[in-house]
Amino acid sequence: MSRDERPVIGFLTDFGLDGAAAICRAVMLGICRDAQIVDISHTVRKYAIEDAAYLLRAALPFFPVGVHVAVVDPGVGTARRPIAIRVTRGDVLIGPDNGLLVAAAEALGGATEVRELMNRGLWLPATSSTFHGRDIFAPVAAHLAAGTATYADVGEPVSTESLVRLERAHARTGEDVIETAVTYVDSFGNLRLAGGAAELHAAFGPIEHGARLDVAIGSDRQPRNATYAASFGRVGRGALLLYVDSAGDLALALNQGSLAAATAATSGMPVRLTMAGGGGD
Amino acid sequence: MSRDERPVIGFLTDFGLDGAAAICRAVMLGICRDAQIVDISHTVRKYAIEDAAYLLRAALPFFPVGVHVAVVDPGVGTARRPIAIRVTRGDVLIGPDNGLLVAAAEALGGATEVRELMNRGLWLPATSSTFHGRDIFAPVAAHLAAGTATYADVGEPVSTESLVRLERAHARTGEDVIETAVTYVDSFGNLRLAGGAAELHAAFGPIEHGARLDVAIGSDRQPRNATYAASFGRVGRGALLLYVDSAGDLALALNQGSLAAATAATSGMPVRLTMAGGGGD
Amino acid sequence: MSRDERPVIGFLTDFGLDGAAAICRAVMLGICRDAQIVDISHTVRKYAIEDAAYLLRAALPFFPVGVHVAVVDPGVGTARRPIAIRVTRGDVLIGPDNGLLVAAAEALGGATEVRELMNRGLWLPATSSTFHGRDIFAPVAAHLAAGTATYADVGEPVSTESLVRLERAHARTGEDVIETAVTYVDSFGNLRLAGGAAELHAAFGPIEHGARLDVAIGSDRQPRNATYAASFGRVGRGALLLYVDSAGDLALALNQGSLAAATAATSGMPVRLTMAGGGGD
Repeated sequence: MSRDERPVIGFLTDFGLDGAAAICRAVMLGICRDAQIVDISHTVRKYAIEDAAYLLRAALPFFPVGVHVAVVDPGVGTARRPIAIRVTRGDVLIGPDNGLLVAAAEALGGATEVRELMNRGLWLPATSSTFHGRDIFAPVAAHLAAGTATYADVGEPVSTESLVRLERAHARTGEDVIETAVTYVDSFGNLRLAGGAAELHAAFGPIEHGARLDVAIGSDRQPRNATYAASFGRVGRGALLLYVDSAGDLALALNQGSLAAATAATSGMPVRLTMAGGGGD
Repeated sequence: MSRDERPVIGFLTDFGLDGAAAICRAVMLGICRDAQIVDISHTVRKYAIEDAAYLLRAALPFFPVGVHVAVVDPGVGTARRPIAIRVTRGDVLIGPDNGLLVAAAEALGGATEVRELMNRGLWLPATSSTFHGRDIFAPVAAHLAAGTATYADVGEPVSTESLVRLERAHARTGEDVIETAVTYVDSFGNLRLAGGAAELHAAFGPIEHGARLDVAIGSDRQPRNATYAASFGRVGRGALLLYVDSAGDLALALNQGSLAAATAATSGMPVRLTMAGGGGD
Repeated sequence: MSRDERPVIGFLTDFGLDGAAAICRAVMLGICRDAQIVDISHTVRKYAIEDAAYLLRAALPFFPVGVHVAVVDPGVGTARRPIAIRVTRGDVLIGPDNGLLVAAAEALGGATEVRELMNRGLWLPATSSTFHGRDIFAPVAAHLAAGTATYADVGEPVSTESLVRLERAHARTGEDVIETAVTYVDSFGNLRLAGGAAELHAAFGPIEHGARLDVAIGSDRQPRNATYAASFGRVGRGALLLYVDSAGDLALALNQGSLAAATAATSGMPVRLTMAGGGGD
């Protein structure tokens, strides 16, 4: 990061909106007064490491190079390691070693180095067992952003292979079928799916906007009629569409409605896409 | 805007709190690192252009002159135009041409010029069909705020008359009666109404705080007793008051309660105000 | 505060997320463009002065010295005084004189001086009866932060003894028992309690992590089994733990669950802690 520009710190937690994230921001500003702290989200579903990992991976590629902190940490105060991952793009990602940071690190070019946060000189003087966001992650990030510590100062290297990783959903394609799963339910109730345009073409060949599909979500017995479209307003109000979302992933939505509310779909739920009538006879 | 001061960017969406607004903030900071981005709201009811227009109109007059972005955009990826409105006060308002920006532009002295965002050189290099907040509106706003583009750079002028406009509720006054409607339900459950002190005096003459009124909300068969008061604590706890709100509009509230919860009132619902006993026998 | 660093303004309200807090931020930036405004919370339960006082007291010790604004103000527009408390650490706390600021002032070393905000030259030119956050508290705070006014400029001194104070819950300890109460229900559903490690040791002597306790919450007839633990993950998923929280207070939680949802506990509810089996026949 250039020292001429104000440092950017991305910040993601499941702390909610009642002050814990603010305490971390205050700690960071006490160390790095000039920081531009960007709150990614603090209303991640409690303890939902997968959701947080999804959001971090979606957000950070659009951030300037910076130091980013993510804390969804049901293991706080246990043996799980506090880590800092340096990535190819130049960012440092800070948080617990529970899988939260790995997909984002990959999206930024991959981890070049991982260190365990062991340098207590960069922590708050007194640390609790239940709030490492405040006591460890925020101050270490702020020292890196401010340039009052270097990456090598945070602690000893650990192997990239030793990182805890999450299982991630993948799309499987067959002839005229995609078997995928919900990777995230967004605030509009849209269902983000594993796989993207490549899977779409592998399964269906040269599919055009306007094509009709059958969609089975979860335990649907009857598939739902959907249209492959470029955007929401390309289908009727309330109609189901399959689209390639702004992260390049497949996604399902109801135009101006909430598909999540209509289906009770949640992360991990399987989804099957076929061409309408394609399985005829 | 003075180039000596950090630029202010007001930012309003219905994106929710799970990362999409943060991505836009990050894009803006990538272009204009010094910006003071002020999140007006991101929890506007999904697709509720009217609510967002109300909030933008209420907020912007209290902002320093700046570049402001508003995105409630069910038509993203369709033919609706992306626009930038320059207003008399000096601000530029950026968003979709769906009525969202017009009331705020009027509150800032009126539109002096409107341009369609057509200069792809100011957009992100790759654009999606579903996230123009990130790809078009945020980067254009940040370029204007940073001074790396001028207003004339954003695209060709279009006529002010061609702007999409929302129907807005108005208060009608008669002798001893105001027929109005709910324009916004705020987070306290207070009902903001069309019309202000002028309508109050037109209908009721020189009305004093403490005066009693009858209020019919929506399909109320029995009017509710209300007191015209300067503020909430001027009536008993749980009592209904009519007041002139901080934007100069008429409003109804329960002192320390939620009138919206008590009445299920929503935007657009008609409200009738009469002097208590005034229509007697 | 050093004039070399950007001033920090902590900001806490019950205004919700639909624009009122943003209007205050905009007013502050109009006066103090360089401020680092830290939103502590704006989703405090409406009118819950006690909850807001708890959060302010928990947050401000982790803030840099600054000017901090808190507005939970059901008495806005009535005789309650608008005040500014200067504290030993050097901060100034601004808000209504309804008890909201007192615990935080004590946490910052205690009030050294209190003044009533009477200098209309520091307010917005036009003031409403219902939005003193925008019209009085925000601009006064911003003038202090910017250095365009001194503390003595805000208005005349009033006695510290005249401050409105809230009743606060205290823990009472007996032999093998602590009688306490819920002071705050956090966003995880954890119950924060009055009293800390001192009370724990007074009641139970040298208690070790892993010790078993009986916990009665509210009108519980049957006590609940709990483990005294350093952190959540030290007990099984869904199990009840007693811990000393990150503010040094006693607290109860379900590991990866919401104790508030499981018990319907609310602020003020009595809680009784005894050693498991300790009271046995």
